[in-house]
Amino acid sequence: MSDDATTSSRTVWLDPSNQETVLVIEQRLIPFEYVEVPIRTAAEMTVAIADMVVRGAGCIGVAAGYGMYLAALEGRALTGADAEEQLQIAGAMLEASRPTAVNLTWAVQRQLRELAGIGEGEQRVRRACEVADEIADEDIAYCASIGQYGLDVVREIHERTGTTVNIMTHCNAGWLAFVSHGTATAPMYAAHAAGIPIHVWVSETRPRNQGARLTAWELGQAGVPHTLIADNSSGHLMQHGLVDMVIVGSDRTTVNGDVANKIGTYMKAVAARDNGIPFYAALPSSTFDPTSRDGVADIPIEQRDPTEVTNVTAWFEGQQIEPRLAAPGTDAANFAFDVTPARLVTGIITERGICEASESAIVALYPEFASAVAD
Amino acid sequence: MSDDATTSSRTVWLDPSNQETVLVIEQRLIPFEYVEVPIRTAAEMTVAIADMVVRGAGCIGVAAGYGMYLAALEGRALTGADAEEQLQIAGAMLEASRPTAVNLTWAVQRQLRELAGIGEGEQRVRRACEVADEIADEDIAYCASIGQYGLDVVREIHERTGTTVNIMTHCNAGWLAFVSHGTATAPMYAAHAAGIPIHVWVSETRPRNQGARLTAWELGQAGVPHTLIADNSSGHLMQHGLVDMVIVGSDRTTVNGDVANKIGTYMKAVAARDNGIPFYAALPSSTFDPTSRDGVADIPIEQRDPTEVTNVTAWFEGQQIEPRLAAPGTDAANFAFDVTPARLVTGIITERGICEASESAIVALYPEFASAVAD
Repeated sequence: MSDDATTSSRTVWLDPSNQETVLVIEQRLIPFEYVEVPIRTAAEMTVAIADMVVRGAGCIGVAAGYGMYLAALEGRALTGADAEEQLQIAGAMLEASRPTAVNLTWAVQRQLRELAGIGEGEQRVRRACEVADEIADEDIAYCASIGQYGLDVVREIHERTGTTVNIMTHCNAGWLAFVSHGTATAPMYAAHAAGIPIHVWVSETRPRNQGARLTAWELGQAGVPHTLIADNSSGHLMQHGLVDMVIVGSDRTTVNGDVANKIGTYMKAVAARDNGIPFYAALPSSTFDPTSRDGVADIPIEQRDPTEVTNVTAWFEGQQIEPRLAAPGTDAANFAFDVTPARLVTGIITERGICEASESAIVALYPEFASAVAD
Repeated sequence: MSDDATTSSRTVWLDPSNQETVLVIEQRLIPFEYVEVPIRTAAEMTVAIADMVVRGAGCIGVAAGYGMYLAALEGRALTGADAEEQLQIAGAMLEASRPTAVNLTWAVQRQLRELAGIGEGEQRVRRACEVADEIADEDIAYCASIGQYGLDVVREIHERTGTTVNIMTHCNAGWLAFVSHGTATAPMYAAHAAGIPIHVWVSETRPRNQGARLTAWELGQAGVPHTLIADNSSGHLMQHGLVDMVIVGSDRTTVNGDVANKIGTYMKAVAARDNGIPFYAALPSSTFDPTSRDGVADIPIEQRDPTEVTNVTAWFEGQQIEPRLAAPGTDAANFAFDVTPARLVTGIITERGICEASESAIVALYPEFASAVAD
């Protein structure tokens, strides 16, 4: 969480002066400018998610939860089947904003379930607001719990080595990606608070550089020692004993433990395995997709605009610009996520504890997933 | 090689109108501007190598060869021990310009050996020019030969699959990195010329983006189909069957087949192994370091200015700029190379043929290395 009094300690929240407006941090301007954006309709929230004003697994789930609250506000004059239909349409729109993240669907479906059959508009609005708040509060509680379980792993390494624990992460699974704490960062913040010396290798995470922009900024604000690296350096550091553990987040994790996360995660996992370095994914239960047992085959991988690869978003003379990196006319492909097979994952850090990346271990921790698994 | 009549077909050459000036392509401006830079002294050549005006394993070897020619010109009035000392000093300066590349030392030592004992200044100049030309001509011949041996591998894949061969490369081991043909690209150009359908995945190669800037430009000029990707995408493409082989260059290869190359190469190799994809290093014999059997332990890895990571070189409104990617004050580490252990290398493509990455196979192809190996 930010120590800076001028910044919010949440990524998505209701405007205290107007409870019919949701405020979000404009994450595309961090770390160069801090701007709060008012969101007034479900369509505005959909655009904010699709354009990555808000991004990150938990954050977009919470944003979708509040998006459904905005939809309830927009449809408060409707009743019966019309009200149901309006919410269904808003939900489908929100779910379509990012195809890989499972939290979107999870949040939207939860709202639809909770609002089903509430015929009266104002009552629907009140319940939608409560559910959105619940999703946000759960996100915070779950991330805090992930931090405590992850702290045990960091502490164990520190007690064994007696020195600074070098943790590598990728992309931003920090508090900016959730509401507070983050997932991959939660054990870092917990260790830092507990006085365990840590140092974080932050990989920049091309093409959108969420590591360079968001994670480095977050860690800097919290006073956690860290060093920015090009993604390409990760393997070299592991080879030379400079990494004790890797912790990443996840946008979707199958019931057998295949982890979809930001593009480049798989390469870190395979390099970690080659060097005997433990590789953890930290995620709340909302990230699990209990209907899939084969992440590489099943999880749709979002392809984004190739200009994110041919160009880069950067800061120059007081403005954000998107200068070219390649000659005009260069073809580029832009995959946003990849899947790390369970065999490369040492453990999954959840709000209920740490389990191995296997169906039996995950279902032991989450018995409610057993029925969802297609046999 | 460039099809563009306005560009040189070599990276380093003697100015036809003034044989005491060496011309080099200013590679830091490609693909946005094409500029030829005159180099008149060994010190200017040292700076051009250190600042990466010229870069790439073979190219800097050839540049160092011509740098020693310029040194001979500067010292043509000297005789005896003074002449020897002046050349030694110039050679040491040139060798120190980039610590990882072995070609620099190789070219400088070859010149020193060839010039030793030539007391007369004009004679020394003539011989230095001949030797520099020989180094350049050999570079071209060796790269052409690498292309033909590599072509056999590409053709075998094409004949087996009956379709386009997808080749992944990293950084720029293209003709810009040598004098002509390149090493990693030589089989691509040879296959394209032979009518074998290929497609090249060009990874951008942060932090200096030699893939995005140089390799994509080279392949585009030659009409070879290619797609630019973020380095992070490499593993995902391999996982999904979209890569048939990887070919990279090398800046130094130990006698047991450990391959030092641009940072990020190791992660590609380990991902290729995880997916059963052949991984080749293409290099001329000058790249071998026959005195080392342990690349990870022995090869010095250059660390460059951290601003290459916190910032990026890009093109904006008709000028080259270096905008920020991370907040001011962000610590960064910038390792320029890594070492891919021989166990991950399917084969080494040299001017004498393809061998496995093992000391016995390398020494079988290069019996002259046997005596250099420290037992």
